[in-house]
Amino acid sequence: MLRCTRCGKTYPETFRLRCDCGGTLLVEREVYDFFGNLMPYFDARRYVQFLPVSGSLLPPPVPAITPVVELEVESVNALFKLDYLQPSGSFKDRGTWVTVAKLMEEGINEVVLDSSGNAALSMALYSLPAGITVHTFVSYGALPEKLALLQRLGAVIHFVDGDRMAVHERAVEFAEKTGLTYVSHWLNPYFLEGTKTAAFEVYEQVGVPDYVLVPTGSGTLFLGLWKGFTELKRMGEITDLPRLVAVQATGYESLCNRSPLKNKLADGIAIPEPPRLDEMKRALKETNGLCVSVTWEETEEAWEWLKRAGFLVEPTSAVVLAALWKLVETGEIPDGSKVLLPLTGSGLKLTEGI
Amino acid sequence: MLRCTRCGKTYPETFRLRCDCGGTLLVEREVYDFFGNLMPYFDARRYVQFLPVSGSLLPPPVPAITPVVELEVESVNALFKLDYLQPSGSFKDRGTWVTVAKLMEEGINEVVLDSSGNAALSMALYSLPAGITVHTFVSYGALPEKLALLQRLGAVIHFVDGDRMAVHERAVEFAEKTGLTYVSHWLNPYFLEGTKTAAFEVYEQVGVPDYVLVPTGSGTLFLGLWKGFTELKRMGEITDLPRLVAVQATGYESLCNRSPLKNKLADGIAIPEPPRLDEMKRALKETNGLCVSVTWEETEEAWEWLKRAGFLVEPTSAVVLAALWKLVETGEIPDGSKVLLPLTGSGLKLTEGI
Repeated sequence: MLRCTRCGKTYPETFRLRCDCGGTLLVEREVYDFFGNLMPYFDARRYVQFLPVSGSLLPPPVPAITPVVELEVESVNALFKLDYLQPSGSFKDRGTWVTVAKLMEEGINEVVLDSSGNAALSMALYSLPAGITVHTFVSYGALPEKLALLQRLGAVIHFVDGDRMAVHERAVEFAEKTGLTYVSHWLNPYFLEGTKTAAFEVYEQVGVPDYVLVPTGSGTLFLGLWKGFTELKRMGEITDLPRLVAVQATGYESLCNRSPLKNKLADGIAIPEPPRLDEMKRALKETNGLCVSVTWEETEEAWEWLKRAGFLVEPTSAVVLAALWKLVETGEIPDGSKVLLPLTGSGLKLTEGI
Repeated sequence: MLRCTRCGKTYPETFRLRCDCGGTLLVEREVYDFFGNLMPYFDARRYVQFLPVSGSLLPPPVPAITPVVELEVESVNALFKLDYLQPSGSFKDRGTWVTVAKLMEEGINEVVLDSSGNAALSMALYSLPAGITVHTFVSYGALPEKLALLQRLGAVIHFVDGDRMAVHERAVEFAEKTGLTYVSHWLNPYFLEGTKTAAFEVYEQVGVPDYVLVPTGSGTLFLGLWKGFTELKRMGEITDLPRLVAVQATGYESLCNRSPLKNKLADGIAIPEPPRLDEMKRALKETNGLCVSVTWEETEEAWEWLKRAGFLVEPTSAVVLAALWKLVETGEIPDGSKVLLPLTGSGLKLTEGI
């Protein structure tokens, strides 16, 4: 079932974004024996028993289980998870895969979303085999390479003159006016069910890290990882949750204190007012986590480092490394810690930028 | 050790492309119990015990284990392997990873290669963390998106006015003149050791297919799959090899009869004179395989189909589906067959082309 994070009201597992009270929703299910419920796949289907989908209608571009590569960085044990190796080039495919499976089950064939790029690209790709028409709202500032891909995937692109929040509002208005289903990954509880599989993988691959650094704008990966590790704890697999570190872009902080200078390079997390903010605060508290924000220059330096390490990612992915450097320098992450750094978006799309 | 495919002479496992007699080389090792030698990883390191590398110097962008997705196509059981979900966006990373590990072991830090794009991109990416300078020879006709990426990865690009074979010859000349190591994936025996891991994965994921359709130009994936399945047979895991189908581009056939019209869309396999031709013929014979070539139009139609199925690949990857349609129509692949179709290159790079 779905449960409201604010008033606790429950709903059946249909496609729904908010409670009647306006609160955000999370999927709540009994969880059982982890290893006893793994399916014999080396991809996201491995965890299908833990997902709120029937399993009979899964879109063909199945998300991969992505490698975790261990490198010594500043005397900590850095575990880079190559989560950009997904069908549309970002971790978002995990959430989209579950979402589109749910939309297919309900026979929904036309949807509206807003995205700075990757979420829309992911939805456009998965919607093709599902026969779903995608209306995507983007700002004029969206990267041309991503727009070109979106168009070639058949998405209907609606340009909005305004910032990320204005794009969000126009999309909501359009969905209300037309009666089409709004599928914002910011709100969609099924999206988090997909991103939680990253935690299951990490657990199987390297156990429980001491720290998990996550690029955090709308919080879809941050909350997915929190939910995944929380379910592992409820299943009795782990005793302690890893400490979650929300990594934000300066000028767009929602959890850290807001800085004056804007880090527009990390465009994927330039989301100053995420609707799941209360849950993110709760996850930070529950995991004894912390928040850190990084500047444009710090992001750029980390991005260059990642390229030289052989990780061809987009700039937003680099914030976690910039944050690691900071937290090691200040002593907040001690030497010898086991630190997970998910790398979230492919750099292959950015022919102008790498 | 390395063994010459022509005269049988053997060499130690150092980096070497040809026998003194001019013949091509293959790595030859004792192979043991498959499941007993798997390492606990969900990525290419799983098979490191079967590779001619020490395991202590592996480049960080570890190739992924890629999903295999089953779809009913024209009454056969089509198994699409999403092998484009690799760090540089193509299956070539499997071969490059092993190659660069070997180059690192030998302290080689400057190399020469020729490539229509993906092999060079892969080598440029893996060479960054290894500290290897890459000279790559490309034709003026190479795709600008791939060249832009190559440049950003720090490769030294040498343009050649001529076709694919001319590019190859210029690269060889340059290597001879400068004394630098030529690392052509066409010849390099370590490259095939990497691509053979795809066969190991397939075996673990879906068992032995009846047919394996492979885009075949220089034959690096074709021979890698042949070698991988052959080793599984020698280990007693399987009794019969799958039937290998070499899929070629019209106008560039080396195994099928040469057609007059050139399929330039499938640029990744536009290699009319591959140096490992005799081995490819042998693999076809040993597996009771066959050869089929597909046209530009057939490739384009299959490419569109793949996009609609949610597989964002480059045109060369589509030839296997075009071939499947043909072989089903002519009855050469009977209904109900289990057919593997590796999808080899990402479409994310092609912002102009998808």
